[in-house]
Amino acid sequence: MNIAVAQSGGPTCAINASLLGVYRQALKEKDISHVFGSINGIEGIIKDELVNLNAVVRTNDDMDLLRQTPSTVLGSCRYKLPDFHEDSEVYEKILKCFEKHGIGAFFYIGGNDSMDTVNKLSRFMAERKKDIRIIGIPKTIDNDLECTDHTPGFGSAAKYVAATVQEIIRDSSVYSIDSITIIEIMGRHAGWLTASTCVLRANGEYAPHLIYLPENEFSVERFLEDIRKVRHVHKAVIVAVSEGVKIKEGENDFDPKKGIVDVFGHEQLSGIGKTLENIVFREVGCKVRSIELNVMQRCSSHISSNTDILEAEKIAEDAVKAAMQGLTGKMMAFKRLYNTPYTVITEPVDVNEVANKEKKFPLKWINADKNNVTNEAVDYFLPLIQGEQIIRMKNGIPIHYHI
Amino acid sequence: MNIAVAQSGGPTCAINASLLGVYRQALKEKDISHVFGSINGIEGIIKDELVNLNAVVRTNDDMDLLRQTPSTVLGSCRYKLPDFHEDSEVYEKILKCFEKHGIGAFFYIGGNDSMDTVNKLSRFMAERKKDIRIIGIPKTIDNDLECTDHTPGFGSAAKYVAATVQEIIRDSSVYSIDSITIIEIMGRHAGWLTASTCVLRANGEYAPHLIYLPENEFSVERFLEDIRKVRHVHKAVIVAVSEGVKIKEGENDFDPKKGIVDVFGHEQLSGIGKTLENIVFREVGCKVRSIELNVMQRCSSHISSNTDILEAEKIAEDAVKAAMQGLTGKMMAFKRLYNTPYTVITEPVDVNEVANKEKKFPLKWINADKNNVTNEAVDYFLPLIQGEQIIRMKNGIPIHYHI
Repeated sequence: MNIAVAQSGGPTCAINASLLGVYRQALKEKDISHVFGSINGIEGIIKDELVNLNAVVRTNDDMDLLRQTPSTVLGSCRYKLPDFHEDSEVYEKILKCFEKHGIGAFFYIGGNDSMDTVNKLSRFMAERKKDIRIIGIPKTIDNDLECTDHTPGFGSAAKYVAATVQEIIRDSSVYSIDSITIIEIMGRHAGWLTASTCVLRANGEYAPHLIYLPENEFSVERFLEDIRKVRHVHKAVIVAVSEGVKIKEGENDFDPKKGIVDVFGHEQLSGIGKTLENIVFREVGCKVRSIELNVMQRCSSHISSNTDILEAEKIAEDAVKAAMQGLTGKMMAFKRLYNTPYTVITEPVDVNEVANKEKKFPLKWINADKNNVTNEAVDYFLPLIQGEQIIRMKNGIPIHYHI
Repeated sequence: MNIAVAQSGGPTCAINASLLGVYRQALKEKDISHVFGSINGIEGIIKDELVNLNAVVRTNDDMDLLRQTPSTVLGSCRYKLPDFHEDSEVYEKILKCFEKHGIGAFFYIGGNDSMDTVNKLSRFMAERKKDIRIIGIPKTIDNDLECTDHTPGFGSAAKYVAATVQEIIRDSSVYSIDSITIIEIMGRHAGWLTASTCVLRANGEYAPHLIYLPENEFSVERFLEDIRKVRHVHKAVIVAVSEGVKIKEGENDFDPKKGIVDVFGHEQLSGIGKTLENIVFREVGCKVRSIELNVMQRCSSHISSNTDILEAEKIAEDAVKAAMQGLTGKMMAFKRLYNTPYTVITEPVDVNEVANKEKKFPLKWINADKNNVTNEAVDYFLPLIQGEQIIRMKNGIPIHYHI
């Protein structure tokens, strides 16, 4: 039989490693002939836009470059399938594409929205009594998928964020005057990536001095108190704040006389980092700046975590093995057995336990003042950022693979 | 005799390598006993806050870590000396500090403001007939110093920017819908760093499709024309714009009815990237985002240019040699002999040819449409970003040196 694979949702550094994992395991399986890559996620299946990977990924060089290339070489989508009992047209197109190309298994690399697609597709195939196996392979820098210890892509994002925040700490400490630096980090609903800045403690850094996550209510008044306290101890204060932090009800018009409402009022103009910068500037009055790590958090493969990249490849290999054993409607997950020595196994979990759900950062790992995280979090995060890939360079720049 | 060294101006990845160069060369000079580091630039000399580097930088390990640590381990300042004929008080303090510690030569690592200090101090010493030699060592990510082919710190910034822009290109290309990504890059008056994104051509990238520098007048109307043209050819348009780009007189209130004046009006709220994002959103109406590379451009030593770091160390060594030959009032400069094979020598230049001046990006390397740069620029930039340091890591994070 043949198989198909697609990539979905926001980019990470590890999605192409998972694509490679599917491809390499398929090469080893005598029952699999061809691996088709679907262009722009499930949209490629619907439109019958497929690439025969066996024809384009030819050499070990190709595979090494694919592994170190960020984002998705097959493109991505944000497409959500309708309920097939209400609207089965698109399902028929998908089935037609699968049958036309002799596809007996489909692998979808993505986050909780993509697992919704895996869930619906596998139930459709079951109802139509088609033996086409649908397996999810997790990925997201948000680390917010249920039933898995962590998600591929997260470790590389966390490593980039840790290295970069440490560099910003150095940058912030050069002048003799006091300063406050607010770093806005991705995570709309879950604070994992922002919390992961705590790993710098392992290297003796005190910063970030304050860490705010969307799991807690955020009070501007308490924030300003925190800032004033920390300023007495540290000349260059570093704050890590999750983009998902929302200012609590009733404080949205915090001191409008001083004009802060201007900034709040236009959510399209500034994120929480810029908003807090303006608040600190007006209320505390010292040198303050905000920094958004922006998309660099999810695509900086030049400093990816080797642990993450190897795991992303491995979990995809195991997804192919699971499909060949006849499983469907599953997402492959990581189960952590030990922190020291770090040991994980992969296991299939029911995809309906994952689809459309979000795993929040554990409240028990947030300190009593709700402005930092505990050392249990450091122990959790550290193994995920270990090791570096040997990046192949040309002209002083990493080489990216193009299909 | 003893010598002193200080670091000044904005951080870069290469300033500590230059500090190391001064220190290591001093160890080799039999006439030099101690190397004093001045805390927070010239302020440390004025306040007599010195560190004996021979007491703290003890091992080869210390030196390797110092080389890979970004920013300034001795701190920095933005202090400008007064004219000594008008106000000599601070000069007397400096002289007192030098004489107290037996300092016969002072090395100031910095940009054009710092070269002003070198200039004034050396003239003061000459007028007072003191044989205390004052030598400037260049550094700035802006690459805007006169009389030198390029400046230490620039190559590392350019390498980070190139690697990061390439990753942003991957990130921007994943969806099937059109998009425009505007990347704001440092350089208030000179466009060198923004222009350096052209190096991606050497690896086969077409992007950035548009490059705007402060050396040219910037017209919103022409910019929108450029965008509309490029959109026909490229699905994911990438624009590199220098933070120093100013919208031309008369266009500052570009289409106020559509509310853009809100964004323009508050220069403290948004840089040129965000401003152009808003303009594109309202005038073109497609998916658009802006990204500021912010301080990461100047402190991301995890992907520094080995060429840059080694040159920063070498030019500082040569500065010490120049002082030991009796030179003063000089800045050490690079002279490029060949692009292939890349060959540079160092030479002392009169510091008053450098102080307070800015070297702009050459107009002859800007294309006729003033929205990109020529291949001559690629040839100039490429050698500066070659090679990588082997970064020592601990817990998956680069190790930074602390004095």
